[in-house]
Amino acid sequence: MNAPRLHAVILAGGSGTRFWPASRGHRPKQFLPLAGGQRTLLQATVERLRGLVPVDRLWIVTNPQQAGGVLAAAPGFPPEQVIVEPHARDTAPCVALAAARIEARDPGAVHVVLPADHRIEPAAAFQRLLERGAELAADGRTLVTFGIQPARPATGFGYIELGAQLDGGQPAAYRVARFREKPDVATARAFVESGRFLWNSGIFVWTAAALLAAMRAGHRDLLAAAERMAAACRAGDDQALAAAFAAAPKTSIDYAVMERAPQVAVVRADLRWDDLGSFVTLGAEFAPDAAGNVQVAGAGARLLLEDARGCVAYAEGRRVVALFGVHDLVVVAVDDAVLVCPKDRAEDLKALVQRLREQGLAEYL
Amino acid sequence: MNAPRLHAVILAGGSGTRFWPASRGHRPKQFLPLAGGQRTLLQATVERLRGLVPVDRLWIVTNPQQAGGVLAAAPGFPPEQVIVEPHARDTAPCVALAAARIEARDPGAVHVVLPADHRIEPAAAFQRLLERGAELAADGRTLVTFGIQPARPATGFGYIELGAQLDGGQPAAYRVARFREKPDVATARAFVESGRFLWNSGIFVWTAAALLAAMRAGHRDLLAAAERMAAACRAGDDQALAAAFAAAPKTSIDYAVMERAPQVAVVRADLRWDDLGSFVTLGAEFAPDAAGNVQVAGAGARLLLEDARGCVAYAEGRRVVALFGVHDLVVVAVDDAVLVCPKDRAEDLKALVQRLREQGLAEYL
Repeated sequence: MNAPRLHAVILAGGSGTRFWPASRGHRPKQFLPLAGGQRTLLQATVERLRGLVPVDRLWIVTNPQQAGGVLAAAPGFPPEQVIVEPHARDTAPCVALAAARIEARDPGAVHVVLPADHRIEPAAAFQRLLERGAELAADGRTLVTFGIQPARPATGFGYIELGAQLDGGQPAAYRVARFREKPDVATARAFVESGRFLWNSGIFVWTAAALLAAMRAGHRDLLAAAERMAAACRAGDDQALAAAFAAAPKTSIDYAVMERAPQVAVVRADLRWDDLGSFVTLGAEFAPDAAGNVQVAGAGARLLLEDARGCVAYAEGRRVVALFGVHDLVVVAVDDAVLVCPKDRAEDLKALVQRLREQGLAEYL
Repeated sequence: MNAPRLHAVILAGGSGTRFWPASRGHRPKQFLPLAGGQRTLLQATVERLRGLVPVDRLWIVTNPQQAGGVLAAAPGFPPEQVIVEPHARDTAPCVALAAARIEARDPGAVHVVLPADHRIEPAAAFQRLLERGAELAADGRTLVTFGIQPARPATGFGYIELGAQLDGGQPAAYRVARFREKPDVATARAFVESGRFLWNSGIFVWTAAALLAAMRAGHRDLLAAAERMAAACRAGDDQALAAAFAAAPKTSIDYAVMERAPQVAVVRADLRWDDLGSFVTLGAEFAPDAAGNVQVAGAGARLLLEDARGCVAYAEGRRVVALFGVHDLVVVAVDDAVLVCPKDRAEDLKALVQRLREQGLAEYL
C-alpha cells in the first residue's frame, strides 16, 4: 500500500492547574518552555512532525482564549488551519470538528490526532510509528491508537489491553482487547507484570469516515452533531458549523468513541514519552543536578540554588530566583505570580486554586 | 530657655543585604514599605517630624545612586535641601557636611541627626524627646544622644552606659559614662540587669560648633575636612565643598566623634523603637496572623498563605504570592527577584549575595 496523504491535528486547547502559576487559563501547559532549549511543548510538537506532515496538512485545534497564543507560538503557521472550537466541549466534538474540516478539504485523507503538551523522543521513531498507524488506518475503517511500553506501574494513566497481533509489520500492531481507566496501584502492577498492557498515549490515527462509523456504533448524539459539522464544512457555512458544534455533547474521545468502536488497533510505541503531569515529575525530562534539584529557566530568567537540595525551581521572565538553604520545595516564579510549596503537595494544588477563587484572585488563574 | 530653631538631618544613604531582594544598592531599606499602611520608612521618618521641624529646616543626606529615589519618595520636598554626598564616606563626613550646610544658612542653629530607616512610635513622644535634646544642645557645647530602654539583652545594638543625671528635667537626661560596642549575650544580660545601660539609637542633636569642638578633641583629620567644608559652604563654593568631602577620612560618627567627645548627654527614650534588622524580626512591627505568619504586601501585591505557618511573606508589585503547605520560610518576591530561604538562614544572606556576584548576577544586588 502506498503511503496515504497524512494530515495532523494538534489538540492545543484545555487548561490545567497542575503547573500553576506558570500555566493559566489563557496559557496552558503547551505554551510553557518545557521541551528543552527554551522551546515550548507546542513548538516541539510541530517540529516533531516536520518532514512527515507538510505545514499545509497541519491543523491546530484550540479555543478562543488561546488562539492568539497559538499563532504567536507557531510563527508562519497558516491562520486558516487554526481551528477555534467555539465552546469548551471536551475532546470528542473537537476531533469531529477537525475531521469535518479535513474531509471537506481532502476527502478520504488519513489524519493523526495528537496532544500539544507531551514530550516524545526521538522524533524519527515517532514518525515511523505514525506512518505505521497511517497504513493501518488507510482502510477507512480502523481506528488506530498508540500504546506506550510502561516504564513503571503508573496510576495516573489509562491502559490498553492487547488482543491478537494484527500482522507481521513493524512496529508491532494489535487488536485492542479493552481500554482500562486509571488503575489502583495493585492493578497497575498486575498490568505491567502481565506484559499485555500498554499506557494509553492519547494519540490516534483515522479517516473521517472511520470516525463517523465508530460514532454510529457508539454515541448517536455525537454522531448527529458530527454529521451536521461535516455537512456545514462541505457547504462552507461557518454559522451552521458553530451551531452544530454547540449542539454536540460534552464528552471525551476515549469514552464516546474509542471504548465503543468495533475496530480498533494499537501500535506498540517504544520511545520516550511523558505527559508532564506536574512540576514534581519534571525530573524525568530535566536532569537533576548533583543535589537533586531540577531547574527550568525560561529566556531571561536566572536560577540560583545555594545549599538547596531536592527542589524544583522554575522561573520565567527577566528575574533571578534564589533558593537558599531549602530542600524538597517547588518554587515557581513568573511575572505576576509566585508559588512556594513542598514537593509532596505540588500535585494537590486544587485546594490552593479554590482559595484563589474565594479570595477574588481568579484573575491569576 | 526658649525653644531653639531646630533643623533635622535625615541620613538616607547606605545600603544593605539583609532585606535582599527587596532592598538593593539603589533602593535600601528606607525605601521599603515597612512603616505600615504602604508607607516607606523614609516617608514615615519625614512625617514623624511634622509639626516640630518645618520643611524649610528639613534636610536629607543621600548618595548619588539614591537621590532620585529620595525625591520620588518625598514629593514636594525642596531639592536644594537634599544633600548628595559625593562619595561613600561613612557617617562622620556626612554629618559634617550637613552641619556645614545648616550653619551657612542658619548660624548657631541646633539640628537633630537621625536615620531614615527606623520605626519609632509614638511620634508625639519622639518629638518631646527631640525638644528636650534641643534644649540641652542649645548651649553650643553639648552633644546629645538618645538611649532606648532595652526590651531584651540584644547583641545586635551598641549600648550607652549612664553617668550622673543632668538635671530634674523630663524626659530624664544623663551624662554618658561610656559607649559600649555590640556585646556578647552574657554582657548584654549584665547590661540590662544593671539598669544603667540603654541601647544606642543612632539619633543625635547638636550645633555645628559643638560638633567641630568634639572633632577638635578627637579626630584631627576629620576636623580639618569639616572646617574646609564649613568654609566652602560659607563661600558657596560647591567645588571646594566636594574636594573637602573627598579628603575626609572614612569613619563613623560613633567612633570618630561620640566616643571621644568631652561633653555628651543621653536622653532616656521610652518609646517603641526598632531598627528593622531583617525579615525575621518584622514580626515585632507587623503582627503575625493566627498561624504565626508575618505578611507584608506592597501596593498591588497579594499574599495567599494556605496551610502555612511561621512564615514571613513579603511581596511588592502587581502579583500574587502563594505559600502552600510550608512553614518557617522567608519568601520575598519583587519584580525581578525572588528569595526563598528558611527563617533561620535569613540573617545570613551574605553567602548568597557572594554567590550572586560570582555568578555574574551583581545587577540584582
